Amino acid sequence: MNYAIVFRLLGYILLCEGALMMPAALTSVLYGEWSVLAAFLLTAALCAVFGLLLREIKVSSNIFYMREGFVTTALSWIVISVMGAVPFVLTGSIPDPVAALFETVSGFTTTGASILADVESLPKGILFWRSFTHWIGGMGVLVFLLSLLPLTGGSHLNLMKAESPGPQVEKLVPKVQSTAKILYGIYFALTALEVVLLLAGRMPLFDALLTSFGTAGTGGFGIKNDSMAAYSVYIQVIVTIFMILFGVNFNFYFLLLLGKVRRAFAIEEVRGYIFIILATIGIVSWDIHNLYPTIRQAVQQAAFQVGSIITTTGFSTCDFNSWPVLSRNVLVLLMFVGACAGSTGGGIKVTRLIILIKAIGKEIRQALHPQVVAPLRMDGKLITHETVRATNVFLSAYMIIFVASVLLVSLDGNEMVTNFTAVAATLNNIGPGLELVGPASNFAFLSSPAKLVLVFDMLAGRLELFPMLVLFTPDAWRRF
Amino acid sequence: MNYAIVFRLLGYILLCEGALMMPAALTSVLYGEWSVLAAFLLTAALCAVFGLLLREIKVSSNIFYMREGFVTTALSWIVISVMGAVPFVLTGSIPDPVAALFETVSGFTTTGASILADVESLPKGILFWRSFTHWIGGMGVLVFLLSLLPLTGGSHLNLMKAESPGPQVEKLVPKVQSTAKILYGIYFALTALEVVLLLAGRMPLFDALLTSFGTAGTGGFGIKNDSMAAYSVYIQVIVTIFMILFGVNFNFYFLLLLGKVRRAFAIEEVRGYIFIILATIGIVSWDIHNLYPTIRQAVQQAAFQVGSIITTTGFSTCDFNSWPVLSRNVLVLLMFVGACAGSTGGGIKVTRLIILIKAIGKEIRQALHPQVVAPLRMDGKLITHETVRATNVFLSAYMIIFVASVLLVSLDGNEMVTNFTAVAATLNNIGPGLELVGPASNFAFLSSPAKLVLVFDMLAGRLELFPMLVLFTPDAWRRF
Repeated sequence: MNYAIVFRLLGYILLCEGALMMPAALTSVLYGEWSVLAAFLLTAALCAVFGLLLREIKVSSNIFYMREGFVTTALSWIVISVMGAVPFVLTGSIPDPVAALFETVSGFTTTGASILADVESLPKGILFWRSFTHWIGGMGVLVFLLSLLPLTGGSHLNLMKAESPGPQVEKLVPKVQSTAKILYGIYFALTALEVVLLLAGRMPLFDALLTSFGTAGTGGFGIKNDSMAAYSVYIQVIVTIFMILFGVNFNFYFLLLLGKVRRAFAIEEVRGYIFIILATIGIVSWDIHNLYPTIRQAVQQAAFQVGSIITTTGFSTCDFNSWPVLSRNVLVLLMFVGACAGSTGGGIKVTRLIILIKAIGKEIRQALHPQVVAPLRMDGKLITHETVRATNVFLSAYMIIFVASVLLVSLDGNEMVTNFTAVAATLNNIGPGLELVGPASNFAFLSSPAKLVLVFDMLAGRLELFPMLVLFTPDAWRRF
Repeated sequence: MNYAIVFRLLGYILLCEGALMMPAALTSVLYGEWSVLAAFLLTAALCAVFGLLLREIKVSSNIFYMREGFVTTALSWIVISVMGAVPFVLTGSIPDPVAALFETVSGFTTTGASILADVESLPKGILFWRSFTHWIGGMGVLVFLLSLLPLTGGSHLNLMKAESPGPQVEKLVPKVQSTAKILYGIYFALTALEVVLLLAGRMPLFDALLTSFGTAGTGGFGIKNDSMAAYSVYIQVIVTIFMILFGVNFNFYFLLLLGKVRRAFAIEEVRGYIFIILATIGIVSWDIHNLYPTIRQAVQQAAFQVGSIITTTGFSTCDFNSWPVLSRNVLVLLMFVGACAGSTGGGIKVTRLIILIKAIGKEIRQALHPQVVAPLRMDGKLITHETVRATNVFLSAYMIIFVASVLLVSLDGNEMVTNFTAVAATLNNIGPGLELVGPASNFAFLSSPAKLVLVFDMLAGRLELFPMLVLFTPDAWRRF
């Protein structure tokens, strides 16, 4: 392990985080929340001091393998979460440090699971920071850093691989730094577009900004106690559309920008994603249609909840915990499906499911015709054995983490659906689950150990398991 | 598809089934149940007629690939289940044909999920047949056939591969027919030993035989309405031990017979299996200890239920649905773990889990040290890529069938834990689930479509998915 370079990078990350607190500090100024301002300035100063100290570390070797990439990524996310929780504690918004850490990790990992029952009473600066963590975490802190810093060695690609969701990392353009810039460009533009459209629906600027942060990062922290239920149908529809847009593989937008419209719509993952969304909206609408006065309302509610869950955003416009069991099952299923790879969404990802289904088909064909060799293809390209293997291993590791987490959380003594969906909602970075952690409730009642298990799950989910698992292997900590 | 040979084999299977109904017919005679005797004789006659007709089919080609193996296996199991259900309907014990099919499939697949609330009122002949299906299904009907019939072509190994549980089929001795004979020998001897030990505990012969059939096949049909709760502690302990013994890979016993004790205990799967059992008995005992007057009783109850669930038998001595949530979670988890490959138990199988965990370890090591190549080993032998791939594909297919089944069953409108554990208990061939399908209840209340979904799951679980999936591929039905 090249400790020097890892710690140096952590220094940069801390400096970034200090800077990223400034918009929240500015919000406090605008709303005259002076004690909140003080909390942000103090935390930012702490970030700056630690960051500058770490940046001073002398790097004697440029070695930067996957191992360094995993460890840097995992530690970065832990460090920014710890520092990001400080303002919550200092302002007294969330006095319990474990709860504050839960809320911050939930923010950065774009989960949106909250321990707060009453968000409307929070200071505006804190509310801003809470939603802004979604926006930062959505595209990734390291990707952000990469777009700024010209690093040397293998660090660029290995960091990007470790932080980006999906079984394969595709560089849009040969240079990683340029790829990161393009990604953030698309991200920024889409967010801005949503803000404008929400303002057009007469949403206040503050609400529009924070809602857009939550949508863009597929996070889901609401700024109202009833999440999105009280907003107009227009606003709910805009949010539905943008949640689904942010769940699309960003390669799609890149191809659109290059004018390659046909190639963009030919991406198998995007087609699968759209198909799943339409199919599940259909099933849920049919299942809930007699709960609503008109079919249109049922479809709109179904579309919002389906879009919110498959993209792992977690906004809600109604308490789907009271829907019929088929719809609840479909939503739980969508929690696992997740969005596209290379989007801001979480979950297992559509592309992995496509790879798994293709692998099953191949296995059956091979059993029937042992002499025929038919390689797997996606988007016309060969799916390498490494990708299939990595996908399978991902799935196994995912299941083991899932099962272990459910067992640990069940030590609290809550009922099975609560435990199961609490883990499903955090490991997949969604937010609300069912029963006690349903959309009408929150995660506050869980014990601190259970909260820490879910904190691990949120981080493992966002970083796609391996960076967090590597932290537990003694191998990763050997000097070289 | 070589239809001729497939149908000819089905003919043999039907002849076998007719013969296997004779012990039940004899039981009816002993208890003077003449109408039940008539039902068995009529059904056996039907089996004989169909069997003899099918056996007359001229076979022009000896081609017998994996495809023929899969299809023969799947069709055999469907055919014996349909014919096996006839006596239930004819005697009026289960008038509804779908319910009778459910009960029979549950018997042959050694699931033990019942739709009967009151088994004690059944005629003895029917009760015998019900438990005897467990014993037949445990080792496999085709394996039974193989031990009798000297077949030609690739049929032997391909049939054995399709019917035997586990990712790899190991022939104990070079000839498949001899392997099948040895397996049935061990099976018969262990069953006989259990009968003797149960008789020693003053269990009536009828009860001892039927309980042993249920234990040997890891089936779990009780012959009392409260399953095993009313029996003495001695009998419960004997059953616990034998359930666990029948969940062990039969290679273990073969090695013991050869005197290779050390090699037998070195089998990684057997060690893993024992470790899981001891660990979970420990956890559950600790969790339930204040529900019982003494620690010893808690341990005994924990051991019975753990042994019953991990081996996928499904007997119960108490209503574990009322245990604390941690214990219930552990039991649900054990439903998926299942017993050893090459045993009579169901579930995912310990060996597959070991392979998956080793594959995760390898993936992490490879990420940390990309230059090092470390092949996976089990019991000192290399785990081939094909085995790892087949294991992974099995897991994916398993999850897809699981999810689809839960969704279909949820159309009945029951609650989530009921649906989830109903599928878990049938796909893993266990028997009781939780809530409405818990040990104190039964599956009768489910609609016929839901019952048929679970019938599919029981067959898919017993045959390890692929034979049943192949039935749905048009490819399998092409002539050649």
